[in-house]
This record gives sequence, C-alpha cells and structure tokens, in this order.
Amino acid sequence: MEILLEQCRELGAEVTIWDHGTNPLPLVGAEGSWEDENVKQFQAMATDSDAYILSSPEYHGTMSGVMKNSLDWLYSKHTSGKVFGLVSTLGGQSSNNTLNHMRIAARWIHGWVTPEQVAVPQIKNAFDEHGEINDDVIRNRMSALSRSIVENSIKLRR
Amino acid sequence: MEILLEQCRELGAEVTIWDHGTNPLPLVGAEGSWEDENVKQFQAMATDSDAYILSSPEYHGTMSGVMKNSLDWLYSKHTSGKVFGLVSTLGGQSSNNTLNHMRIAARWIHGWVTPEQVAVPQIKNAFDEHGEINDDVIRNRMSALSRSIVENSIKLRR
Amino acid sequence: MEILLEQCRELGAEVTIWDHGTNPLPLVGAEGSWEDENVKQFQAMATDSDAYILSSPEYHGTMSGVMKNSLDWLYSKHTSGKVFGLVSTLGGQSSNNTLNHMRIAARWIHGWVTPEQVAVPQIKNAFDEHGEINDDVIRNRMSALSRSIVENSIKLRR
Amino acid sequence: MEILLEQCRELGAEVTIWDHGTNPLPLVGAEGSWEDENVKQFQAMATDSDAYILSSPEYHGTMSGVMKNSLDWLYSKHTSGKVFGLVSTLGGQSSNNTLNHMRIAARWIHGWVTPEQVAVPQIKNAFDEHGEINDDVIRNRMSALSRSIVENSIKLRR
Repeated sequence: MEILLEQCRELGAEVTIWDHGTNPLPLVGAEGSWEDENVKQFQAMATDSDAYILSSPEYHGTMSGVMKNSLDWLYSKHTSGKVFGLVSTLGGQSSNNTLNHMRIAARWIHGWVTPEQVAVPQIKNAFDEHGEINDDVIRNRMSALSRSIVENSIKLRR
Repeated sequence: MEILLEQCRELGAEVTIWDHGTNPLPLVGAEGSWEDENVKQFQAMATDSDAYILSSPEYHGTMSGVMKNSLDWLYSKHTSGKVFGLVSTLGGQSSNNTLNHMRIAARWIHGWVTPEQVAVPQIKNAFDEHGEINDDVIRNRMSALSRSIVENSIKLRR
Repeated sequence: MEILLEQCRELGAEVTIWDHGTNPLPLVGAEGSWEDENVKQFQAMATDSDAYILSSPEYHGTMSGVMKNSLDWLYSKHTSGKVFGLVSTLGGQSSNNTLNHMRIAARWIHGWVTPEQVAVPQIKNAFDEHGEINDDVIRNRMSALSRSIVENSIKLRR
Repeated sequence: MEILLEQCRELGAEVTIWDHGTNPLPLVGAEGSWEDENVKQFQAMATDSDAYILSSPEYHGTMSGVMKNSLDWLYSKHTSGKVFGLVSTLGGQSSNNTLNHMRIAARWIHGWVTPEQVAVPQIKNAFDEHGEINDDVIRNRMSALSRSIVENSIKLRR
C-alpha cells in the first residue's frame, strides 16, 4: 500500500492515509456512531479527495468487515464521479472476490473504478527484505494501477 | 426476521437470536477484540447451532459492514457442513447483491446455503399494521425458506 | 435499447448495432468458429468503436449465454481503455446480477464501465403504446447513462 | 473432469457426460433452437440425473459462453433440489469468479451447490505424464468434491 501511495506521490498526487489503528470508525448504528468525530473527519477527507485507493484483505471470500464498514460511512455526495483503485491481499492463493465486491460497492456510491487492479496472494511472502514486492507481475500491476489512478482522475475531473 | 424465526419454531426448531444492539461485536482487529466476551459467546452460539439465518440490509450494493464483521468472527470450525438461510432488506427496489455476497461468504466457511432466499424491497412499507408481510409473494418465499432450513438441516446433519 | 442509441446519436455519437438475429456469432470453439466471417466483422466493429452499450436479459441470475459468448469473442486488443455502458432487462422484479457480472467481464477486457447503469424490470410492461418507457425513474437513468457514455468516452480517449 | 467422474463412479454413482464437441447445443433463440434434438436430449439427461458437475474455463472473469448457454437450456423443473458440484479451469493464476457465478446461476434453477469446489490454475501444467493432477491440494479438493456430491445427493434426495 505504501508502495502505491509513494508512486502516486511521484506522479504528482497529494496523498493522505486513513489509519484504522489510530482512528477507528465505529460500526454504523453503534451507540454514538452518528456523532462520531472520526466519522466526520473520514467523510471530510473523502470530500476533499479526487481519487481513492482501497486495500482490503480477503476474509471469507469477500472484503473485510472493517473495509465494508468504512464504505458504509461514505455516500455518493462524497464520492460521485471520482476514481477508485483497488487492491486486495490474500493469505493463500489468488482470488478476485474482494476486488469484484469492492468494485460493485464503489459503483454504488457512483465511483469510476479503474480497469487496473491488483490481488496480492501469499501476502506473508510477498515482500523481500528491502520491503519491495518480490513478484515482477505484481510489481508491474502496482505501477499500472498508480499511473491509471493519477492520469484518469485528472481526465475525468469535472 | 421474527416471522421467519417463529415459523422455524413452529416446525420444531429451537431458536436463538443474536442482538447486535445489546451485544455488539467489536471490529476484527480493534483493541481488545481478540479477548472480547461477546465474541466468545457469539462463537459458542454458532458452534451449538445446526443452522443459521442471516438477515442484512443492502448498503452500497452488498451486505452491511455489521453483517460482514459478524461473519469475520466465524470460522469453518463453527459452521462447516451446516445450513444457512439468507434474507436481505432494501430501502428501494429489489436487488440480489447482498444475498449473492452472503451466499459466497457462507460457502467460504463451508456452509450449505438453501436455494430458497428472500429479498424484501421497500422495507418501510413491507409490513401491515399487524406486523404481517403485505406481499403474498414475499410471504410465500419466507415460508418456503423456513421450511427448507428446518427440513434440510435435519437431512444434512452428520 | 433503441432509445439509448437515439440519445447517443443526439449527443453527437455515431452509432452501429450488432444484430444477433441476422448476424449470429458461433459459440467459441464450434466447428469453423475460428474462421467465421461474422466474428471477424464483429471484432472489426469493436476495434472501430470508442464505446459500447451492452444490453442483456437476465437468465438464471446472470447475463444470457448469447451475451457471454459475444464477449468471449472480444479481447483487450479490441476494447482496452474504452467505455462500456450496461443495461439489463428482467421478466420480473429488479435485480442487478447481470449488470454486476457484465461489469466484471468488461473490466477483464480492460474497459471503463460507467457508474450509471439501468436494470429494466417487468420488461413486457415497460413501454407505453408510443414505445416510450413508462417509468420516470428508468427513463431518467437511461438519459444519465447515454450522457455519461458519450461525455466520458471523449474525456478518457487517449 | 474425467478424474472427478471416475471418483464418483467408484463411490457408486452412475455417470453420464455431455460432450459439446459431438453434441453441440444451439444458442438460445437461434433459428430452429426451440426444436433442436440435442436440446431435448440434454434436458432429458438433466431430468434423469440426481446431481450435476459443471466444469468451465474462466473467460473474461466469468464462466464461458458455452457453459452459460448450456445452463440457459435448463429450468427449475429439470434441476430443482438437486446437487451441483463446480469446477473451473484457468490459464493463469487462481480465481473464483467462474465458481461464484456458476454457484449463483445454479441456485437460480434451485440447485444445492456443495460447499466443496475446485479452481484449477495453470491448467496446461496441471497434469503429469500419467494424466494425474500434480498439485496435492487440488487433488485433495477433487476427492472432497466427488465425495460430497455423491453423499449429499443421497441425503438430500426426496
């Protein structure tokens, strides 16, 4: 993920990250969730952005509950007409379920999802000791994804 | 949902309900989530059950984050070979996305999902003043679903 | 479908239609299919186009075999980076399965699928005696779809 | 596929195969398709069967047009309440799209799809010189699938 963001920066994009560890979002409907300060900041960040990169592990054949809950806090008014790029990570062999289901969800909030996308299988062995991606195919897909996000969010901006 | 459970009871099933309002599950990975008492109870309930009924609203073209997060707390060891019945509710017109994505997720934890399933569109107008479902088609699907869950969880039990 | 194409024409697009009745495509792998003249014409038309509108009935919870077989004859070299707009028609109540599965397939051949899409339920009663769409919501979605296809295929063209 | 069928035979099942090479099905709606003799035989075979194994290559992120067209010729009256087992084959890395979409389609004709399923990646290198599957994981999944189909079609039979 850091690799992707760094690439986007090099292509001229300004990048912000939402860290669920330090700024957790409450489950939609949980007590106090509608007035939650993190939710308000998260939505403000979404409003201020021209494009998004979603990265989720695949749990039980689809995106994580954490990812889905984060998307549940976004509405068309934050995201309509903007570009989404998608990444999923897997413990075992490759699968596209999470990418597919995030693609459908991003469309529902009226996003343009890039054709480029990346599934990273065997995530525990995906990086070498310098933090670089081992697999050439995956690395090339990452570059194609970051380039597509930056170039096409400029083209599609209204 | 209450209607379905009542039907299952009438067919001889013992029914328990997980109420996310009174017993919320933490997001997977949230601080303290791995020792959460509600999670342990939830998993124990899953282990003790022969069949499950999942009911989720459709948000952004798939199941809610609350539903996905709940499924993330279940593993094959709790659910393998057991029967799942699926219901989704929609604010507007009918859609099967949530049913489809729950079907895929339930399979991932090795469940048998009944062919019968119910999407309830226009949920705010779906019930009459006695709490009965207005639409005959929906009502018949509910009956077919509860019957299928009870009968087939008996047939498939090992 | 004719309505959509007419709208695209009014927005300045040049429109061609592939008629499966008069120019059927063989199943991929059928005897003689690799030298079929209709296939060659179909692929040439795809190469010459900047955008595509796919319209499929929903059969058994996904696109028709005819639609899938047609897509099987298209490769990235014909379609990469081009815009796809999606329509599905249903005999009964609304569903998004066909739209979702066509969205996934169009991405596989590297297309940009518009966020706008239209499912037309109850297709036998969807038109009035003048051939106009009865339902205002559906009609507005059709207009939004044709506008999005024309405008964004210009923006995204390389 | 032959391996799976052989395993089902050894478990006591009587097995028939539909060979699309020698007995092609016409596209639904093609001239003469409604009176096609192969279609009638195909439907009769479906009616006489207690369970089905579907095996499709993944083309463009979903099942082949040939598979979808074959499913379009089957209705609930042929398949309702029967067991489906699913296999997909891939030229490259693993993916579950075809399995997922066949699962949804099989449900639409009211089938029970086994939780066990197999995706075979790198199909050209999947077999050794004796025609055996190279990969232990895949071979074990094949055995689990054939056993599940035979055992559960007996349990679910009415």
